[in-house]
Amino acid sequence: MSYNAPVKDMMFVLKELAGLDQVSQLPGCEDATEETVDAVLNENAKFTSEVVAPLNWSGDVEAANWKDGVVTTAKGFKQAFKAFGEQGWQGLQHPSEFGGQGLPKLVATPCMEMVNGANLSFALCPLLTDGAIEALLVAGSQEQKETYLPKMISGEWTGTMNLTEPQAGSDLAMVRSKAVPQGDGTYRISGQKIYITYGEHDMAENIVHLVLARTPDAPEGVKGISLFVVPKFLVNGDGSLGKRNDVYCASIEHKLGIKASPTAVLLYGDDKGEVGKGAIGYLVGEENKGLQYMFVMMNAARFQVGVQGIGVAERAYQQAVRYANDRVQSRPVDGSANEAVAIINHPDVKRMLMSMRAQVEAARAMACVAGAAYDAAHFHSDEATRKQNMAVYEFMVPLVKGWSTEMSIEVASTGVQVHGGMGFIEETGAAQYYRDAKILTIYEGTTAIQANDLVGRKTSRDGGAMVKGLCAEIARTVAHLNESGSVHAKAVAGRLDAARAAFLDTAQFVVDNMKGNPNAVFAGSVPYLKLAGTTVAGWQMARALLAAEAKIKAGETDSFYSDKILTSRFFADHVLNAVPGLRDSIVNGYQAVTEMAVANF
Amino acid sequence: MSYNAPVKDMMFVLKELAGLDQVSQLPGCEDATEETVDAVLNENAKFTSEVVAPLNWSGDVEAANWKDGVVTTAKGFKQAFKAFGEQGWQGLQHPSEFGGQGLPKLVATPCMEMVNGANLSFALCPLLTDGAIEALLVAGSQEQKETYLPKMISGEWTGTMNLTEPQAGSDLAMVRSKAVPQGDGTYRISGQKIYITYGEHDMAENIVHLVLARTPDAPEGVKGISLFVVPKFLVNGDGSLGKRNDVYCASIEHKLGIKASPTAVLLYGDDKGEVGKGAIGYLVGEENKGLQYMFVMMNAARFQVGVQGIGVAERAYQQAVRYANDRVQSRPVDGSANEAVAIINHPDVKRMLMSMRAQVEAARAMACVAGAAYDAAHFHSDEATRKQNMAVYEFMVPLVKGWSTEMSIEVASTGVQVHGGMGFIEETGAAQYYRDAKILTIYEGTTAIQANDLVGRKTSRDGGAMVKGLCAEIARTVAHLNESGSVHAKAVAGRLDAARAAFLDTAQFVVDNMKGNPNAVFAGSVPYLKLAGTTVAGWQMARALLAAEAKIKAGETDSFYSDKILTSRFFADHVLNAVPGLRDSIVNGYQAVTEMAVANF
Repeated sequence: MSYNAPVKDMMFVLKELAGLDQVSQLPGCEDATEETVDAVLNENAKFTSEVVAPLNWSGDVEAANWKDGVVTTAKGFKQAFKAFGEQGWQGLQHPSEFGGQGLPKLVATPCMEMVNGANLSFALCPLLTDGAIEALLVAGSQEQKETYLPKMISGEWTGTMNLTEPQAGSDLAMVRSKAVPQGDGTYRISGQKIYITYGEHDMAENIVHLVLARTPDAPEGVKGISLFVVPKFLVNGDGSLGKRNDVYCASIEHKLGIKASPTAVLLYGDDKGEVGKGAIGYLVGEENKGLQYMFVMMNAARFQVGVQGIGVAERAYQQAVRYANDRVQSRPVDGSANEAVAIINHPDVKRMLMSMRAQVEAARAMACVAGAAYDAAHFHSDEATRKQNMAVYEFMVPLVKGWSTEMSIEVASTGVQVHGGMGFIEETGAAQYYRDAKILTIYEGTTAIQANDLVGRKTSRDGGAMVKGLCAEIARTVAHLNESGSVHAKAVAGRLDAARAAFLDTAQFVVDNMKGNPNAVFAGSVPYLKLAGTTVAGWQMARALLAAEAKIKAGETDSFYSDKILTSRFFADHVLNAVPGLRDSIVNGYQAVTEMAVANF
Repeated sequence: MSYNAPVKDMMFVLKELAGLDQVSQLPGCEDATEETVDAVLNENAKFTSEVVAPLNWSGDVEAANWKDGVVTTAKGFKQAFKAFGEQGWQGLQHPSEFGGQGLPKLVATPCMEMVNGANLSFALCPLLTDGAIEALLVAGSQEQKETYLPKMISGEWTGTMNLTEPQAGSDLAMVRSKAVPQGDGTYRISGQKIYITYGEHDMAENIVHLVLARTPDAPEGVKGISLFVVPKFLVNGDGSLGKRNDVYCASIEHKLGIKASPTAVLLYGDDKGEVGKGAIGYLVGEENKGLQYMFVMMNAARFQVGVQGIGVAERAYQQAVRYANDRVQSRPVDGSANEAVAIINHPDVKRMLMSMRAQVEAARAMACVAGAAYDAAHFHSDEATRKQNMAVYEFMVPLVKGWSTEMSIEVASTGVQVHGGMGFIEETGAAQYYRDAKILTIYEGTTAIQANDLVGRKTSRDGGAMVKGLCAEIARTVAHLNESGSVHAKAVAGRLDAARAAFLDTAQFVVDNMKGNPNAVFAGSVPYLKLAGTTVAGWQMARALLAAEAKIKAGETDSFYSDKILTSRFFADHVLNAVPGLRDSIVNGYQAVTEMAVANF
């Protein structure tokens, strides 16, 4: 059950597909030279595979445990997180002003993948902390930044996102938690929050909760939600920890997977701290703008959850490859041996492994390309370029989140399948990935929520302009593939061009029907996300094929490049080729959904 | 977490699609009148939903427990199985000569679905017992039949299938267990068997193990395997139980799902009984013909495992519908309400539920049609008709097994998804179906093993004749759909005809390349199974649409029929329409698989 970080493929993606050299020329990103990035990735690979990965299975068995409001994490988690912070990994992508390393998101992305590949449950703690850091950076006061950020960036304190309440999940308009101003600049917070990842634990001295709540005279709905910072322990003027705040962990959930990560029910204002009734909170930014700030966190977290999918799928792939190499069963179908062989020799096992690998590589490429757009959106000197890149990044967030996580469930399931009966035995470890991955399509917005975002804000709002722009770029890649003229390039060109045409058609259908027939559009929203994600990911694989062919032409003999051509071809023939059918399901297949009476289910 | 057996849809399938009236005219099947079948199904529905279903979740929590060779099943299992036997459910499809009810497989099929929908873990005990009964019926001596069958058919004793050994899973040629003749007609059996479902338990007085082993001078490979009956307790001449045989349960597995069903490691010949060293076994049929008899069991079990997939998928669907009706979240996208509504009103939730329902209904129809072919193959008075129906049944076994089980994983996963965060909490129950279903694509032959069977014995061996025959029938259904002329019928006709053409093409590819390029054929074997299963299941849904239209034309106003038209349409637009793409993946997409070097994974 070891984990080998796929640094070679990551460096290929960074350099050949995501434009590391251009990112390293952005103002503020000068440290991200190829040499440095290579060193950072290798150091991260060493840490995650040696320190974090060995805790994955033991963490699943032991799980996080709750007793009387106190949560104890599995053996080794506390020490590993301490080392994670001390080695600077929590601060990797955060500003050096507050103690971070200030590296671009493009570099942080493969590092996120590695810690998630090593241990999804562990990685959630830094993931949520990153989100809280980003929200404070964007909306916090200077005092809040100075109070919380250095400790969070160092990993001494962690952060959480407190959105969900029993009646308010996907629909945050229904948030009921209250925040009553005390006249001294502070608020008293009360209410119940659920599904709070690492809402309580023993891995850090303090926990910085970012909490959505309503002030007494706030308007109804999402326009009346404010964001508050509520530390588990109040922070004294000198930075030392003060009284225990009135936030209490009532229980943690018994879950299908990610069992080592505590999922807390938090009670605010039950008079269980040392501050009297009501947790003391501090407004972040302006009142009633909480949702806007929360989206900063959400977008960061959604991107990272997509990367979680890539990490766990990579790990499932690695374990399946090892088993397929070890397990001897049956003679080859082509009669090439007279005795049983390792099952990796059987065509169907190869097909399964190719399917896992091609999809993981495609998702990795898509996420890193999105990460590079994020960096250009933040650091480029030209405002129009920043704006354009921000639009690209925002378009890709639901794809990275939605597509990569749906993919991860399929890949983890295939991983179990490769193991046969052994896969169903928990001790083998393959089943853990299948259990763990299932949360990824749900939290930080289900796939349907990502699809709503894609259909509404990202496709319909600009009249399909972004899709048209991407499709024009895809058409250029198709032209390059046809110029290459190799058998594989030509095959991929045909699939990619068909997908491009289907993508355009479907986006047009969305734009045309959004107002007149929204039920038809939303009946196809998730298939449209799948279509868009497959096309964009397949496009990256096509670009990877071209880059690999160029390397081979330039004399490279490493089989990495010829393998990349094959995974690109596989993706085109077995994944990308479903896109025209998806268009058809969306454009001509909504009737059965819209006509079915709700009462008849 | 209640279970409501879908008797209405079952009766529709039996009468309108599977030809219950014709089956009930077969010699020996005269009892299966519509009235009787309706009564049997309703009685079974009552028993499974009231007695068996409530043990599903508690069984998962409690699990089967092993201590010192003794296995204790979860609370209530023993009593429920006793009632199951006493009410005659174990004997439903077995000959009245040995105490069974002698009902056709067509009637047994929905009953199997119900007990599996109620409780997959529980249902495994009768499932394996059915397989052992069938093998003894086919190959056992009269004495063996008289000794074992009445007790097994009454549910007093249960049966097992002992095939797998650590080194021999999919590849039974590697079976090493030994059977040494004692000169008195008995054999002494020794060896280790693993993954033996209900290999040890406390739900019956005796367990009748059917065991594959080799005699001392048996040839190597599958031609040297014999089948033995090895009872846990020897049976005295008067039918009473005698000495404890030398078969010992060394442990049970810690599994991802179906936790209430013990999966045993059995040691034969460790001198742990009361008979000295070596378990006493009796040869079934002739020496070295074990694999042939085992296939009788396997085919019965494979069919039933397919039905297990339908059962668990139906249950996942029901639970998702209930949650979607209860959970209120967000306003409708079409602006039809100013407040949050039950999520079943949201188009994407409807799409998910339609996807679950349409696939379950399609799989149910396919299994019942196969069941009717089985009955005609066994009971029809005309030999040629029997032979033809046996060929149809055998073609459909890998589809029922492979397609329905792969479907069940997808449907169970969608069921969790409908629940959002609640789905990931174990107490909700949706996650159990996701865990339980994952075994179905593995045991009794993985999907790849089913696909090998489909590609080799079922498609290539007859030069594609069976596929051509089925496609000619499908073409007639297409013609009927076009004659109907309704919007939905025409839409379905287009999809079905495209699928038919793709099915023919792909079968031809299989036939043409089996000898010359087997690696290419087997690289597409599982996609071919998916293609064939989707086409045959979609064909049944198209037939269902025609039957429903006829009912409506005849004056039926029950919305069941208009809903059936919509689920048929949905299946065509969202599932069947993937078939041409699959053809393309198989026929033009094997290169990346065959070219990839095994060492480079």
